[in-house]
Amino acid sequence: MKDFFKVMDIDQVTALATGFGTVADETVPADETLDRILAEAVVSDIDLPDFRRTTMDGYAVRAGATFGASEGSPAYLNVKGTIRMGDVPDFSVGPGEAARISTGGMLPDAADAVVMIEHTEALDDTVIEVYKSVAPGQHVVDVGEDFQRGETVLDRGRRIRPQEMGVLSALGRESVRVFRRPVVGIISTGDEVVPIDRMPRQGQIRDVNTYSLAGWVRRAGAVPKTYGIIPDRRDDLREACRRALSESDMVLVSGGSSVGTRDYTIDVLESLPQSRVLVHGISISPGKPTILASVDDKPFWGLPGHVVSAMVVFAVVVRPFIDHMAGLAASGMPDLRIPARLTRNLASAQGRVDYVRVRLTAGEGGLGAEPILGKSGLIHTMVRADGLIRIDRDVEGMEKGTAVQVLPL
Amino acid sequence: MKDFFKVMDIDQVTALATGFGTVADETVPADETLDRILAEAVVSDIDLPDFRRTTMDGYAVRAGATFGASEGSPAYLNVKGTIRMGDVPDFSVGPGEAARISTGGMLPDAADAVVMIEHTEALDDTVIEVYKSVAPGQHVVDVGEDFQRGETVLDRGRRIRPQEMGVLSALGRESVRVFRRPVVGIISTGDEVVPIDRMPRQGQIRDVNTYSLAGWVRRAGAVPKTYGIIPDRRDDLREACRRALSESDMVLVSGGSSVGTRDYTIDVLESLPQSRVLVHGISISPGKPTILASVDDKPFWGLPGHVVSAMVVFAVVVRPFIDHMAGLAASGMPDLRIPARLTRNLASAQGRVDYVRVRLTAGEGGLGAEPILGKSGLIHTMVRADGLIRIDRDVEGMEKGTAVQVLPL
Repeated sequence: MKDFFKVMDIDQVTALATGFGTVADETVPADETLDRILAEAVVSDIDLPDFRRTTMDGYAVRAGATFGASEGSPAYLNVKGTIRMGDVPDFSVGPGEAARISTGGMLPDAADAVVMIEHTEALDDTVIEVYKSVAPGQHVVDVGEDFQRGETVLDRGRRIRPQEMGVLSALGRESVRVFRRPVVGIISTGDEVVPIDRMPRQGQIRDVNTYSLAGWVRRAGAVPKTYGIIPDRRDDLREACRRALSESDMVLVSGGSSVGTRDYTIDVLESLPQSRVLVHGISISPGKPTILASVDDKPFWGLPGHVVSAMVVFAVVVRPFIDHMAGLAASGMPDLRIPARLTRNLASAQGRVDYVRVRLTAGEGGLGAEPILGKSGLIHTMVRADGLIRIDRDVEGMEKGTAVQVLPL
Repeated sequence: MKDFFKVMDIDQVTALATGFGTVADETVPADETLDRILAEAVVSDIDLPDFRRTTMDGYAVRAGATFGASEGSPAYLNVKGTIRMGDVPDFSVGPGEAARISTGGMLPDAADAVVMIEHTEALDDTVIEVYKSVAPGQHVVDVGEDFQRGETVLDRGRRIRPQEMGVLSALGRESVRVFRRPVVGIISTGDEVVPIDRMPRQGQIRDVNTYSLAGWVRRAGAVPKTYGIIPDRRDDLREACRRALSESDMVLVSGGSSVGTRDYTIDVLESLPQSRVLVHGISISPGKPTILASVDDKPFWGLPGHVVSAMVVFAVVVRPFIDHMAGLAASGMPDLRIPARLTRNLASAQGRVDYVRVRLTAGEGGLGAEPILGKSGLIHTMVRADGLIRIDRDVEGMEKGTAVQVLPL
């Protein structure tokens, strides 16, 4: 038996991500920031709000004037006027006075609380009965209560969700500095692989990896750039790699999971200038025959040819590199795992980390993770899968009912 | 006290979604299918693979020739030739024979298994020793083992993930029928609201809802179409609504959470042709003052003006309507909830469903859900939140440690 790989642990491999740089930043307009990653810390240049607003429809009052008010013994207040939305009130409110106000309106001077309209009754145009007391500050948003001037509102490295888009507009940010989306070159190899518009002859199959990897790259927030299918000829592969490297921030070569082709890929990598092979095999299943090189300070991956292996390696190994290069802060990383319980016993080989495809099932007491077994060349196993679970290297297997963490696919 | 709303339960409201139609379908090319929803069932027109492939590098053999082979007592086989990738072997394999084969290669006639190269030793160019027996079918993917001709591979109404993109390419689908992305018109109202490029005067605030709602719409797989800020004048609002309805599949009007503006919105809705108000208030918090009408058979929403309320209503009420209109099959719905345990006691009012913003925290024994309290006008509470939990209407509160399901935000 020969040792075909210099195999590394997956955690050693993902730790290499920080050895690569992040992409440059760019300015995007406010309506194109969704899912982008902030390249600047966003500091508020205003108090938000910068005036005292009511959160309810009703009457702005001095709270003290309502103390002791009840249905049986209402407080009577004189209505001094109506506050128009968006306007600064041009009158103040005295001890026995109230001002009509709508949600979002600005409180007049001296008023310090709002009585909900539901707790009042207008006797006529100028006098109301108040049935419930309010405390100072009640139903009022104070100056700077959302954000204060000078406060860091969003950190650099944070992914922008719809609510962060809302914050940016509240601060009047018409544009914002974000990291450029990393460009990921995708090369498919294999003499048996034909383009999807071709009917494969016996012995051939259509190119699956170009499309599924492009989908994963997009999911990761990066931009796929595809280079089609390169035949198993050294010069062709070298030329394609050279071009992809010059146009991308990272390159994925898939296919070539046979020993011969792997050797090709390694040869080509070693022949490129500024190249260092960092990983030649990872102790995971599926996905062992994975290659990682640094070429021109860019990560260059040789992914396994089996469709499932390529996808699993992307999800658990490549993705953290994209996140790092894209500027995502470690603290801003969505570490989304879904807790579930294994629905059956699962065997596992020691000495490697196993990633098992699972389907989530609804059960009493929570979700079940039902293993989907099947060869790593069969794409239907990924179509049936909702996620992956990890079985650590020193675990021989897991019993039915074991708590697992599912990485959604 | 007046009854300002005809309040409905949230589950009654979401059940109304199926009363609306789905959007039409369209054809998109293979590389633009990610996250689209299939408008056709995808049936395989081939056996995949349509030849017997090996999953390993090694030798194609008749399994019987290896029975009993071991390190101590190897089997000796004659190597008849090498199978080239993508080619149909032009020779057969007899009982004492083997053929060199690489992963993905086609098995020759009569061969029924593959011996891994690691379990062999080549004595010379024509003879190998085999150290381990293989069973018939071992390391071989059979004809149709991934998909069989005539099999429904993907159902209509399913959302396309990267792995489904892979399946579509395996089947040679250069284009596919998907549902059109629903167009959602967004109108902001309120005399106190100014565009984000304007510095608000005292009493004014910038338009947050247009941007955050556009983000949520995009997240839901739909296309936002924004109409800016419409002043609180009936004719202006009616004209904007009319235009949005003619250009969109659904309309969201936000702001106008004051009683007066709500009345406006209702008046305008009632004045539009083919209009029926279906919901005028939902017994949820935040989000009670929500309006739903059917206008021209399209859902027309009056959302609360408070930024948090608008977002929560979008996530828990509007989103199911978009999913339905977008053609997503109920079975294909991602019902992603993250199980966690409440980190503190939480009070709740009976008679309504409460949605509480939570931050996920790592703890021993799983995730914690830490409630984020704060007024529904404060956007920073949504920025700190990872998700929402639901407290049902007949629950008075929940104790620290209670198991909850977190809807990610």
